Amino acid sequence: MKAMVFHGPGQRAWEDVPDAALVEPTDAVVRVTAVTICGTDLHILKGDVPEVTPGRVLGHEAVGVVEQVGAAVTGIKPGDRVLVSCISGCGRCAYCRTGSYGQCRGGGGWVLGHLVDGTHAEYVRVPFADLSTHLLPDGVADADAVMLSDILPTAYEVGVRNGRVEPGQTVVVVGAGPIGLAAIETAKLYSPGRIVAVDLAAARLEAAKQFGADVVVDAGDDPEAVVAELTGGLGADVAIEAVGVPETFELCARLVRPGGRVANVGVHGRPATLHLEDLWIRNVTITTGLVDTVSTPDLLRMVTTGRLDASRFATHHFDLSDMDTAYDVFSRAGETGALKVVLTR
Amino acid sequence: MKAMVFHGPGQRAWEDVPDAALVEPTDAVVRVTAVTICGTDLHILKGDVPEVTPGRVLGHEAVGVVEQVGAAVTGIKPGDRVLVSCISGCGRCAYCRTGSYGQCRGGGGWVLGHLVDGTHAEYVRVPFADLSTHLLPDGVADADAVMLSDILPTAYEVGVRNGRVEPGQTVVVVGAGPIGLAAIETAKLYSPGRIVAVDLAAARLEAAKQFGADVVVDAGDDPEAVVAELTGGLGADVAIEAVGVPETFELCARLVRPGGRVANVGVHGRPATLHLEDLWIRNVTITTGLVDTVSTPDLLRMVTTGRLDASRFATHHFDLSDMDTAYDVFSRAGETGALKVVLTR
Repeated sequence: MKAMVFHGPGQRAWEDVPDAALVEPTDAVVRVTAVTICGTDLHILKGDVPEVTPGRVLGHEAVGVVEQVGAAVTGIKPGDRVLVSCISGCGRCAYCRTGSYGQCRGGGGWVLGHLVDGTHAEYVRVPFADLSTHLLPDGVADADAVMLSDILPTAYEVGVRNGRVEPGQTVVVVGAGPIGLAAIETAKLYSPGRIVAVDLAAARLEAAKQFGADVVVDAGDDPEAVVAELTGGLGADVAIEAVGVPETFELCARLVRPGGRVANVGVHGRPATLHLEDLWIRNVTITTGLVDTVSTPDLLRMVTTGRLDASRFATHHFDLSDMDTAYDVFSRAGETGALKVVLTR
Repeated sequence: MKAMVFHGPGQRAWEDVPDAALVEPTDAVVRVTAVTICGTDLHILKGDVPEVTPGRVLGHEAVGVVEQVGAAVTGIKPGDRVLVSCISGCGRCAYCRTGSYGQCRGGGGWVLGHLVDGTHAEYVRVPFADLSTHLLPDGVADADAVMLSDILPTAYEVGVRNGRVEPGQTVVVVGAGPIGLAAIETAKLYSPGRIVAVDLAAARLEAAKQFGADVVVDAGDDPEAVVAELTGGLGADVAIEAVGVPETFELCARLVRPGGRVANVGVHGRPATLHLEDLWIRNVTITTGLVDTVSTPDLLRMVTTGRLDASRFATHHFDLSDMDTAYDVFSRAGETGALKVVLTR
């Protein structure tokens, strides 16, 4: 089968590899019908995620049709159309038993395209298939459903829910890429008083408006002053970090009011400075997190009923066989304006 | 009256000042019968808290007898024996309306010995007296009650409750000074599985044992390795920072398991490094905070009934007139072994 293989920093190839096959009785093999590329895949290609070794098939987001299941799989069967979640869960460890699948100690967590071969391929072996897939209703298109593999539950659980967004509150989303836009989309579920989006790119700020941001601020135009003016000098209730560099995290810590929350969603490669000399007295809560995907069934229901719009993230569509071009377009997002690129067959 | 006056970094004097007097109709004047000195008072004396200007009377912890009340005060009257809380609350601002008195925007918060003259005096003017004092039952001694002005509610609210200590969990308290010991004492209310105390001083580790720590670790003896061994390599559920330097904060961030909580209680003067490159994926929650003292009535009830022991913090007792000696003894705690010094009359 064809797959997008990581060959070390800066090197990738869409090439022939051995077909995905069952290994454990809890596995399924899924014929991939839709995938999307994540900013994390680009981090891996830059060499930022050293656990990913050369030879690894990339990708952790997919929709497909079950081809085979192992002897222990009871929830899905060949022919079923499923969402492949970015998170797998053994279901038995202390973390899985409390729904913290992202922190699974039994071989799950984020493994696809990370510690085992991923979804950017014609077929994928999905470990712990019962807990790592979700049956898809007919009404949801592949290209929409694939947004539920990662960006929607990540933005919702790690941004909106960790940030404890509440009705009437002021929420600032720093970074209006796919994750930031998904944070805006899912923050609206809690009826905040005002959503402020901050980014450097005019096209992304325009997208943020389309998704429902009430105020958009160019990161160069003093977002602190804008938020202070909007909130009577107090600061935001919640700041969601959706970039992953120290500067944006530190901005979030300055944007929140006393008693406010900073919910970090970004994938970071470097430490940040935590100004405890200011923050110790301010009752600030800072959270980090990998998604658990416990919210995926709820989000899927909302996409199915139209309560959430998953169709607006995709700016570019390709055939699965055009994987290499899709990576090129997504890698040059600043130039191509790509948010999510979706590949289907 | 006599009072301990801050005269700029490194300079203090127990000297004659004008008598405390009513200014606002919400004030009370309290005749001080017991005080204690806080590490924060020493921070002020070092010049670490620049809002405190020369001429300010120090101190934010006291017990006393109401001498006079302003026209608007309805909850206490002359002759009542009261606890003076370290936190005042206007009762009307958005923060006070949600019980966040520490963040009061209406002139309260931490003001005593900070923005207005404090309790290290024969008399003190207590702003917003209805919300800043608590009537004391007869059964509680002055020297015990004064531990409820600051250290018990601070350790409980900012350490134990922000850290969400739960039955059966592993709690590490870094710093076994008065606040750390109060965190141990109040963490026990939630029946943790195990309390680990970390400090550099053998005498403080011994005190931690007396207060109920199950394991004590010299900070030089690799607390990370000890906690890892105790928790099967996972880390603590909660780490409470009760020192206030970057090194101990950063230690706390390394001591917690994925999904763990770091509750900062320490007063910091310098930024810390936040290793987001490790923490982004670990579902860690970090909290900071100034106490609100919403828990003071509950804690007072527990001290009254003997459920909490407030008598063990005091290592040195003085007459109020020996304020200067008491400051000396508390300043040289490393040498004198002082935990809390209590002054009564």
